[in-house]
Amino acid sequence: MPTYRLDIEYDGTDWHGWQSQPDDRTIQDAIESALTTSLRFPVSIVGSGRTDSGVHARGQVAHFTPEKNIDEARLLASVNGILPDTIAVRNLVLVKESFHARYDARKRRYRYRICCTPLAIGRQYHWFVSPTPDIAAMNQAADALIGEHNYSAFCLSNSETKNRVCTIFEARWHDDTAQDTWYFEVTGNRFLHGMVRSIVGTLVEIGHGNRDVGSIPALLKSEDRRNAGFSAPALGLTLEEVVYDSFK
Amino acid sequence: MPTYRLDIEYDGTDWHGWQSQPDDRTIQDAIESALTTSLRFPVSIVGSGRTDSGVHARGQVAHFTPEKNIDEARLLASVNGILPDTIAVRNLVLVKESFHARYDARKRRYRYRICCTPLAIGRQYHWFVSPTPDIAAMNQAADALIGEHNYSAFCLSNSETKNRVCTIFEARWHDDTAQDTWYFEVTGNRFLHGMVRSIVGTLVEIGHGNRDVGSIPALLKSEDRRNAGFSAPALGLTLEEVVYDSFK
Repeated sequence: MPTYRLDIEYDGTDWHGWQSQPDDRTIQDAIESALTTSLRFPVSIVGSGRTDSGVHARGQVAHFTPEKNIDEARLLASVNGILPDTIAVRNLVLVKESFHARYDARKRRYRYRICCTPLAIGRQYHWFVSPTPDIAAMNQAADALIGEHNYSAFCLSNSETKNRVCTIFEARWHDDTAQDTWYFEVTGNRFLHGMVRSIVGTLVEIGHGNRDVGSIPALLKSEDRRNAGFSAPALGLTLEEVVYDSFK
Repeated sequence: MPTYRLDIEYDGTDWHGWQSQPDDRTIQDAIESALTTSLRFPVSIVGSGRTDSGVHARGQVAHFTPEKNIDEARLLASVNGILPDTIAVRNLVLVKESFHARYDARKRRYRYRICCTPLAIGRQYHWFVSPTPDIAAMNQAADALIGEHNYSAFCLSNSETKNRVCTIFEARWHDDTAQDTWYFEVTGNRFLHGMVRSIVGTLVEIGHGNRDVGSIPALLKSEDRRNAGFSAPALGLTLEEVVYDSFK
């Protein structure tokens, strides 16, 4: 059966996250419903991973395997015509049959955006953090996240995931284009439930001087969520990219 | 009397433009009301110029002249606390007494953003133009806008402005950061009512092959609005910057 890859962007503000749920407004459900309407047969899609309620994506990836080949350009136009304007399928292409959006993903890249003075344009995608935290201190602290660690301390305590080991390749705050705005870019092989948001909340506590700059290694070692900081709100978080091996 | 300069950002989506109007929801009214509440005396502000209903600004400038000096930092925090989150005062500073936000403005810079495939994040700030127009042709046509011209052909016909001569310094389409998004950057000494939007509408007609690439000079010469293209919608337009002499 042919396999099609979808590249999906969404504004998560009014959605209850990615993952299909009974009686709930989720992004996966909306896309499956648009595909089913367009193709006139039931379609299920597999995403690269979940995003929480209110979290956005520029580069979510999913796949589906219809029984026969379809007209990609026509389907793309039709699906985007059906979907609400907060969800856009940016690309739809035939890939090798074995492609799996979740199992084949090598890296995920997230951005978390903050503004430290009130922002009007794009406020929907920034957490308002005041006063301006010490970005240099936050970057010094974030260096300790790089590498392979057990991330239980940054995982929602009710998560059923047993393997809590993640490899982080990049974790750095950058100056954004608008005045007094910054973003935290973090890339890893995988992320646990609530992980980026609790990392950001903890780093902002450090940036505000409420937690020691050198406290991350002991925190990771504790493997206890209660030792980490609060969770930063969902609105600032965007799944920017899912990286696959190039031959996929 | 001291003069204070305000640098203002707004998401114009739900506002009836800048200019104060009886019984209408305008940005100037909202800011004057927030200043009046904070300072406990009536405040009027003078903006660099109007923006239409639905148009955004990142760099609108205004000034006001209270009878005595005020605490800028405190007023800034207070005003932003009162204003709805679609308006943000980004800076508030004491300037030389003679500063006038409108008369001293030397240049205005606007951006008009389009997306040519559906966009979810930031869709509020892009006009969806499909199919993708010929950007090179639009840039070739836009070159004819540079310099001093009578812009009557691009001015709303009911405008009462008598002097229709404007000098355009830059008028160019650029590739934006997201896939299949572009923005038109235009800088001039002044702009007439509806001017940027009718320029953009006309250029997109050229980019879709419905109007000749070399048609702009004759169109300007005609000085007749009926010869230009339709007005591009307000949502794509942002007043990015108002430029003053540096000594102000």
